[in-house]
Amino acid sequence: MQNHVTIAPSIMCADLCNLEKSIKEIESAGLDTLHIDVIDGSFSPSMPLGLSTIEQLRKITNMNFDVHIMSNDNEFFIQEMLKIGVEQITFHLETTKHVDRYINMIRKHDTKVGIALNPATPLSALDYVLPQCDTVLLMLINPGFASDKGEAQVPYATKKVEDLYNLIQSKGLDTSIEVDGRVSLETIPKLVNAGADMLVAGSTSLYAKGQSLAENKKTVENLIEEGLNEEVKLNG
Amino acid sequence: MQNHVTIAPSIMCADLCNLEKSIKEIESAGLDTLHIDVIDGSFSPSMPLGLSTIEQLRKITNMNFDVHIMSNDNEFFIQEMLKIGVEQITFHLETTKHVDRYINMIRKHDTKVGIALNPATPLSALDYVLPQCDTVLLMLINPGFASDKGEAQVPYATKKVEDLYNLIQSKGLDTSIEVDGRVSLETIPKLVNAGADMLVAGSTSLYAKGQSLAENKKTVENLIEEGLNEEVKLNG
Amino acid sequence: MQNHVTIAPSIMCADLCNLEKSIKEIESAGLDTLHIDVIDGSFSPSMPLGLSTIEQLRKITNMNFDVHIMSNDNEFFIQEMLKIGVEQITFHLETTKHVDRYINMIRKHDTKVGIALNPATPLSALDYVLPQCDTVLLMLINPGFASDKGEAQVPYATKKVEDLYNLIQSKGLDTSIEVDGRVSLETIPKLVNAGADMLVAGSTSLYAKGQSLAENKKTVENLIEEGLNEEVKLNG
Amino acid sequence: MQNHVTIAPSIMCADLCNLEKSIKEIESAGLDTLHIDVIDGSFSPSMPLGLSTIEQLRKITNMNFDVHIMSNDNEFFIQEMLKIGVEQITFHLETTKHVDRYINMIRKHDTKVGIALNPATPLSALDYVLPQCDTVLLMLINPGFASDKGEAQVPYATKKVEDLYNLIQSKGLDTSIEVDGRVSLETIPKLVNAGADMLVAGSTSLYAKGQSLAENKKTVENLIEEGLNEEVKLNG
Amino acid sequence: MQNHVTIAPSIMCADLCNLEKSIKEIESAGLDTLHIDVIDGSFSPSMPLGLSTIEQLRKITNMNFDVHIMSNDNEFFIQEMLKIGVEQITFHLETTKHVDRYINMIRKHDTKVGIALNPATPLSALDYVLPQCDTVLLMLINPGFASDKGEAQVPYATKKVEDLYNLIQSKGLDTSIEVDGRVSLETIPKLVNAGADMLVAGSTSLYAKGQSLAENKKTVENLIEEGLNEEVKLNG
Amino acid sequence: MQNHVTIAPSIMCADLCNLEKSIKEIESAGLDTLHIDVIDGSFSPSMPLGLSTIEQLRKITNMNFDVHIMSNDNEFFIQEMLKIGVEQITFHLETTKHVDRYINMIRKHDTKVGIALNPATPLSALDYVLPQCDTVLLMLINPGFASDKGEAQVPYATKKVEDLYNLIQSKGLDTSIEVDGRVSLETIPKLVNAGADMLVAGSTSLYAKGQSLAENKKTVENLIEEGLNEEVKLNG
Repeated sequence: MQNHVTIAPSIMCADLCNLEKSIKEIESAGLDTLHIDVIDGSFSPSMPLGLSTIEQLRKITNMNFDVHIMSNDNEFFIQEMLKIGVEQITFHLETTKHVDRYINMIRKHDTKVGIALNPATPLSALDYVLPQCDTVLLMLINPGFASDKGEAQVPYATKKVEDLYNLIQSKGLDTSIEVDGRVSLETIPKLVNAGADMLVAGSTSLYAKGQSLAENKKTVENLIEEGLNEEVKLNG
Repeated sequence: MQNHVTIAPSIMCADLCNLEKSIKEIESAGLDTLHIDVIDGSFSPSMPLGLSTIEQLRKITNMNFDVHIMSNDNEFFIQEMLKIGVEQITFHLETTKHVDRYINMIRKHDTKVGIALNPATPLSALDYVLPQCDTVLLMLINPGFASDKGEAQVPYATKKVEDLYNLIQSKGLDTSIEVDGRVSLETIPKLVNAGADMLVAGSTSLYAKGQSLAENKKTVENLIEEGLNEEVKLNG
Repeated sequence: MQNHVTIAPSIMCADLCNLEKSIKEIESAGLDTLHIDVIDGSFSPSMPLGLSTIEQLRKITNMNFDVHIMSNDNEFFIQEMLKIGVEQITFHLETTKHVDRYINMIRKHDTKVGIALNPATPLSALDYVLPQCDTVLLMLINPGFASDKGEAQVPYATKKVEDLYNLIQSKGLDTSIEVDGRVSLETIPKLVNAGADMLVAGSTSLYAKGQSLAENKKTVENLIEEGLNEEVKLNG
Repeated sequence: MQNHVTIAPSIMCADLCNLEKSIKEIESAGLDTLHIDVIDGSFSPSMPLGLSTIEQLRKITNMNFDVHIMSNDNEFFIQEMLKIGVEQITFHLETTKHVDRYINMIRKHDTKVGIALNPATPLSALDYVLPQCDTVLLMLINPGFASDKGEAQVPYATKKVEDLYNLIQSKGLDTSIEVDGRVSLETIPKLVNAGADMLVAGSTSLYAKGQSLAENKKTVENLIEEGLNEEVKLNG
Repeated sequence: MQNHVTIAPSIMCADLCNLEKSIKEIESAGLDTLHIDVIDGSFSPSMPLGLSTIEQLRKITNMNFDVHIMSNDNEFFIQEMLKIGVEQITFHLETTKHVDRYINMIRKHDTKVGIALNPATPLSALDYVLPQCDTVLLMLINPGFASDKGEAQVPYATKKVEDLYNLIQSKGLDTSIEVDGRVSLETIPKLVNAGADMLVAGSTSLYAKGQSLAENKKTVENLIEEGLNEEVKLNG
Repeated sequence: MQNHVTIAPSIMCADLCNLEKSIKEIESAGLDTLHIDVIDGSFSPSMPLGLSTIEQLRKITNMNFDVHIMSNDNEFFIQEMLKIGVEQITFHLETTKHVDRYINMIRKHDTKVGIALNPATPLSALDYVLPQCDTVLLMLINPGFASDKGEAQVPYATKKVEDLYNLIQSKGLDTSIEVDGRVSLETIPKLVNAGADMLVAGSTSLYAKGQSLAENKKTVENLIEEGLNEEVKLNG
């Protein structure tokens, strides 16, 4: 099992009218990766953030930008992200016929490549491209449906992380497993124990109400530790 | 093996100018489930029935409405069916990126969820969502191509039913297996023996010419019995 | 001004579970034209009636079928209507690049051609094709938005009919002007006086509650007479 | 001619990492209207700002939000804007079949309605809907092509404003004429003189380098005065 | 009236397996302009010629390439044509929201700009862009429907040419009028007399059977002369 | 292992201005199969060859036409190919919901059926349709991205061929394995050894510079022999 787990705060939980201040706070807490959702309103009925905002953000921070594209037009958004300059670009398998092409396009710019899978998408979709990816992002809720915010994580969340972990192990790879969607104080130990090593952290963890970002970060780190320390998984 | 097999007459074989009468005849024959195809003319070149017709049908019968959506816009048609109030909504995996979302959307209305697969679609598509479904509908012909009506069932029909049956058994589930497309007097015993327990019955079975609906129903029931009584399947 | 005005009852107001009976009633009332809406769920969120229903209707009546296609795929639906055999096919200018082609396609089958315009579409769209049409159908509400049923007729309804009437007169043509959308007992005299000679009649006229179809027909005829008898229009 | 001209600073020229501060500066300069571009990346290859950003902006200012939707899915974005609560919603005629419907949808929420026209779109498109609009927005460059930023205003910019002004006058209406695209210190007098009374002000006017926002505002106001004071237009 | 009329042989009538030979024959006949149709199979069900063919053609001749794009993706095909290097690029107004943008894109490469109109498209579509075009191409049959080859020219062909000629004259422009579709030995005099000065010449003129290309060219030239010499048009 | 390997020269490497001569040269070299790419500019930004070119080619040669459709509209292009008359039609699984339908449509015309898979597509997509195909075409580069011509073959090329070979063997089938994309002098032995028996031969093999087609053919044959003669594969 990987012994380092990244906590990636979601930009969507920041104060969008005072982003510079929000970013400073995140940096002060010792976090180095920022998860940025790019949704086009067509993939799903949501378009939270714009490209110009990301462009300006790039100028004020050196954090790792972990961009999650949810779009029916990967070509356009990948190109835009490469122009801005980000550290990792993740796109959805469900929205492209030319998966290998986008992997190459991103890789050529010395940018990390992530592939995102919707909850229902089987892992067999990764049969040939898993070794080409730095990261596989597993959506644990349906991406981009703002009005469904009450939805719980899919019941097979932990199992899917575990299956992916075993698949990666069986191929001798060290692909990261990123989890996104209700990655909460309750679910973090299980997800980490199952193999997740990159956590998209939002309103149910880092931004949980009642505590400061720094305090929440400490709590999350403890939960990660807890997940890592549970007895070795059988298939691990 | 399930010991009850449902016969679901297809509304498309009814007298569309005298639906009330047709429904009464179906009810009199002791059938309690009505299979309703909703095709949008875009998924395939066919649009047999309209939503207003289904809405008015709903007011004259309490039969179980087993709706099979064949559309590129599942969101719209699922919502319409939920408004009308039906007992089961089945949609195609091939036409949606947000499979899990539609499962939840239907389930929340206490409506049964079916997932339909075109003939060529592999069962691996069900890897994570099988436990979330009440029914898997296997298309045994290509859906909605009216002009191809002479087409035979795909040669791998029985094998696919059997594979699905075994998959369901291996996971300890009790998902229904619905079969649609040339479910005829000739093929029923094999399909039932392979594990099908919900039969979409049209012009080659319940509505076969020369006999009344009630007589055909008796014939179909005998064929189901025959299918169920054949010696226990090896993998069962 | 034309001295004959056609009343075309909308099939959507009929009893869809007892269409044969509904059609008989319409025929008995002495009406010879049936207005049939074909909407595909993509042009607007509505798909009231299916093609198989129209196909079966065709077999039980010789009424003139006045089909109004509201679809993004005119090619498909026009072909289907030609196969079924109808008397007039009307399609929307807003959804086709190949207007002239569809006019020819319909004409070649000795079927009348109608062109439909959404409320906001200017009449300049007809600059070259007006002489090729038998009918121009003016939508006086937005077509196919079931949930907006309370919407009133557009305020420029009468003016648009009048403009079209004058345009037709100025070209020496005898194109029919069909009006659709809240063609009610209140608006009929004005619309007829402005030049409309084909009225799509639904829940606010022929099917107005409290009176029989035959009685409503008589009322509508009186209102038409009233509209025709008002003093000659200045531009007529 | 209208004797009040509104200067609407474009949000795109603000500091997107410090929006609250930017808004305060705009408010302090005595400006009360904020022009907000909503582009979906499909209408044109640009997606500057996100919906969550607008949502949060709404909470920190009472300025009039003048939203310009450039999208192929007006239905979705209009609904989102109505949820957020804005003062005017402008959508493009070129991207909708159901113009009248969107006008009604916006009006019903007591929100002003604008219709935007791309440079090449003729004014005849407004034949029936002009009286239903509060504002017509004329694009004077092609909207949303970030990489073409060097493009000049279309050569027919002033003429189109003038034509629209005359059209509005001839109908006895008081529709606002909003101009967008290189509305610069050089072009403002001509545009205002031609009839423009709402200026989308960006990098070539309010945000011109070398002067403060307040200083630029004064310059713009002088230029507007100049435009208004030129001798009465011939066709006015 | 323009006193020079260009005859542009359609590449589609050449021997596609021996293009070099065909081009030499065309050049020998003293023709300097080649009309090249680029259809994408989506605009209409036709995709006669490929881009690689045009690319190789470019290397063997210096004729003026007059490219007529019939596509739903003008952006892509215009860019490809600019890469290959052609003398004029014509695209359809009916397939683009960003008309002015494509005009600029082509113009910037010192390439002539043409705008094509389907038969039914009104000339009001040109209200603001006519002065920006070198050529307006009027389709006189519906473009790209191979199976409709028997179709006659639209009955309003000559009138539309005349209307366009008058419009151009009234604006003091010298825009070319290109005509395409059944520009035959029978129709050439009328079309030329009406104002056409660029003739797309195919199977019914330059490639008419029974005569050589050179002989047909002579015939066409005589017919042009005839058209030009008819008494001066009233509105000319 | 199959003991015959077909070399299919790609039409794209021929002299497109002198196709008849190119075809004669290919025939003289003793090759009997011509690989023809049909790309629609929408599947990927490329549209090399047109349908009329293929139609005319058909008239001058009896070679086997091995057509590889890369399109989002398989229905149209398959029908066009069937009209022209070709020996094998291959379409992409990634672009159709109705796989089984197209298999039948092609088969009914006594034409061989191929299914093409993009590099990243897993073989599980073939679970039910493998026995219905004559050929599976594995793309070893991303299809149709002309500007990426420098791209290498995907690193998993040989493994995927091997996996497919084993799958075919395990089912007792004799499906052909066609490979396409950088099938070069360097990669041929490995690909053949892994099980490929149909090689799309282009600029890196049959059309390699410095040698004649006939000489290159000899080289390719030697490399095939080399691939076939390597020691028997473990899984074979």
